[in-house]
Formats: sequence, structure tokens, C-alpha cells
Amino acid sequence: MNYRLVIQYDGTRYAGWQRQTATKETIQGKIEDVLGRMAGEPVEIIGAGRTDAGVHARGQVANVHLSRERRPEEIREYLNRYLPEDICVSEVKEAAPRFHSRLNARRKTYLYRISTDTVKNVFERKYIYGLKEPLDVKKMEEAASYLLGVHDFQGYCTRKMKKSSVRRLDEIRFREMEGELRIYYTGDGFLYNMVRILTGTLIEVGQGKRSPRSVTEALETGERARAGYTAPPQGLCLMKVEY
Amino acid sequence: MNYRLVIQYDGTRYAGWQRQTATKETIQGKIEDVLGRMAGEPVEIIGAGRTDAGVHARGQVANVHLSRERRPEEIREYLNRYLPEDICVSEVKEAAPRFHSRLNARRKTYLYRISTDTVKNVFERKYIYGLKEPLDVKKMEEAASYLLGVHDFQGYCTRKMKKSSVRRLDEIRFREMEGELRIYYTGDGFLYNMVRILTGTLIEVGQGKRSPRSVTEALETGERARAGYTAPPQGLCLMKVEY
Repeated sequence: MNYRLVIQYDGTRYAGWQRQTATKETIQGKIEDVLGRMAGEPVEIIGAGRTDAGVHARGQVANVHLSRERRPEEIREYLNRYLPEDICVSEVKEAAPRFHSRLNARRKTYLYRISTDTVKNVFERKYIYGLKEPLDVKKMEEAASYLLGVHDFQGYCTRKMKKSSVRRLDEIRFREMEGELRIYYTGDGFLYNMVRILTGTLIEVGQGKRSPRSVTEALETGERARAGYTAPPQGLCLMKVEY
Repeated sequence: MNYRLVIQYDGTRYAGWQRQTATKETIQGKIEDVLGRMAGEPVEIIGAGRTDAGVHARGQVANVHLSRERRPEEIREYLNRYLPEDICVSEVKEAAPRFHSRLNARRKTYLYRISTDTVKNVFERKYIYGLKEPLDVKKMEEAASYLLGVHDFQGYCTRKMKKSSVRRLDEIRFREMEGELRIYYTGDGFLYNMVRILTGTLIEVGQGKRSPRSVTEALETGERARAGYTAPPQGLCLMKVEY
């Protein structure tokens, strides 16, 4: 039986989603350990987005095949009883046998939070990038408009992609709050570090360090050096995966 | 010169505001260490509210006398450079020589946050009490109305008070949000554990375990046993001190 899970986590102390060597703590590793104990056999859980070290999620989606059928509510309760307090499974449902959380994902939405306040908020410090500078959001919106649509985003990626680095970016939405700027990115998929590099580049535009138009250079040349810096992981959160 | 400070902190890893033995980490101890280094002499900082272990603050007020005059902004920047990331000084101002943050405080407001959702929020887990049960807020509001005014709150206190345990409770305000109940308490002062015991008692009313009227028993008898349980510290936050 195939199950679909919705998961939220505070990624602060983890080496990211994906299971690595035994010594590194990962979200996938933690969930597989608990699920494996419940199932009495090793299990593999597939996540829709492979979030980096320190990145958070409110709506990560994953799926897992279990050889014995169980009630979804039983699985959810077992997981939440034994998972550490920074990981929570908010939903478990039965899924079609062929459902694959990553390959079937149509769209994902990420949120990047930037603190523009000079006074830090101690309660949000692990979930926001403390830039502490005002930003010109009008210019950032103009820059964002050049990034929308279908492009080869290799220049906005830290790793050389083996397969295609072409992605469709549907929306970049800005929300200005008191002392904070939130940027929501929605697209059909995101390359390694892509949202963080997009954010670093937009921040440089908002600081007046580069023109809005200049964000197209990394798209046209595919050169990482033409894009801005990689914004730190703690401001980033995977919000939603659509199917 | 006397200075007035506004301080916010995440109290999770501290043994409360008040300096204790050298081995215990306290907010007062951390700030005095940094200020003392700046001043080149031992300093004593006086906090308006002595928050317990694990309790947070957004608007703690404190004052400190320094023998050498300094610009308030210089003090604030020095503190925020050297304080740990879970303490932040949001404001420093010159104060009248006789200003005393605790003795001159007219009113304080505390917030207690209760999660009534069955699914926990991993991002808020350190700042909210995960009750995970629905509460009858109408009944809690009725109970709260009996607590307002001037009373001897000894029954709502864990320690026997040497001085008077009479306090004036001006307001208990309820704010219902999705999956969360917030209770704001405003009064002229609060005894040791008083807000947490008031909250535990109101929760028992909201769960239907006791009648709204029964909250007056601890007021009339002064017996701690007549009040409800002490709600855990992480839901509590000192929001504001008025002068």
C-alpha cells in the first residue's frame, strides 16, 4: 500500500532532507527510522523536495510503500509519537499505487523571509534572514518580472545539472510587512540552491548594487558568477507542493 | 547616569531572569556580564519582572546605573553585538536618576499562548503550550470576570509571600485564533507563578473539569490547592511594562 504524507519541520539542526551517511542527521533518515520500526522492515520514503541543510518546510509531501496495510491515522499517530519535536506529520492519506511525490509534483511554492528591521526578533531568528537593511521592493519586482516564464536556470544553480536545467517560474510574489519582506516563489521545479540564489540576486537589486535588468545575464549565459550571492538557508521554507 | 532598557528574550534555555549561582544561565547574568565588560566595572541591572525559567519576554524593562556617561545607542549596539542570539535589547534611553524599573512599574501585561490544535506547529513549539484540546472560551470568560479587581492572590501563588499578596487584575482578554487561544493578563503586579496558575485554572474551566464560579475559592481561602494546575512556562511571555 502506498501512502502520501504531509510533513512540516524546523530544519535548523538537520543536514537537509536527504538521507546521507549514518552520522548526519536528516529529515528523511529520522522518518525512515521511525517508520521502519513500526513496519518491522526497512522502508524508503520519497520526498517531493530535497531541502538543503537548515531549510524548513511547512508542506513537504512524501510517499512511502508499506507491505502491510494500516490505517492512515495509525501511521500519523505513531510517527508523531516517536519523531523528534522539530518534525511533525500533519497528514497521512492512502495514495494510488503509482503515486510518486517527486515525479508527479506539478508545482511547488517556497517562501523566503528577510528581516529588514535593525532590531532583531529573537523569536523568529531561526526562520528569517537578518539582513537589517531597507530594500527597494519596486526594483525587486521589476527584476522578478524578467525571471518569470520558462528559462534555463543553470546560472541560478550551484551544481552542474546532469539532466535539463530548464524550469518554469510561474510567480514571484512580494509581501511587505513591518520590518520584514516575504518573497513567495512558485514554479514547476527548482534546481539546487536556486531559490536562495534568486533571493540573493533580488536582494542586490533591492540594495541598488545591480540593476533590475542585470538578473537576465545569468539566464542568458548560464554562468553562476553573473547571479548574486546565495542567501542563507534559515530564511527558506517549502510551503506547498501541488499535484 | 541611569539608563532604561527594553529587552526581548527567548527564555527556553535559561533558568529565568534573576541571577543565581554562577553555574546557572540567567538573562540578568548574561546582560550584566556584557555590560560589566563594557563599563570596566561590575554593574547591577534591575528587571521589572522576574520571569521564571523557560518564560519569554518581548517587552521586559530594566534599568542600570553606570558611573560613566555613554550614548544610549552605543550601549544598545555594544549589548547586541556581544549578547547571545536569544537575547536582544530593542531600546536604550536615559532615565531619571531615581527611576527604578520594578518599583515604578504601574502595570504589566503577560500573554499566555495555548495550542488547541491536534496537529502541532513545529515552528512555534517553544513558545506555546501544546494542550491539543478544544476549550470552551465562553466559560473561561465568565470565570475570568470573577478574578478581575483587587484580591488577595495568595491561593494563586506557589510561594508564601512575605509582604502583601494583594494585587489588582485589570483585564483578562481572550483572543481565539485558528488552532490557538491567546490569553492576555494586565494588572498592577503578579505573584510568583500567578499567571501560570491562573491559566491552568482557566483551562480546567474550559475543559469542563470545574465550574466558572469555582475560581473564587482560591481567592476566598488563600489555599493553593483550590486553584488549578500550573500551566507550563513556555506558553508565557512578558509583553509590556507601563510606567
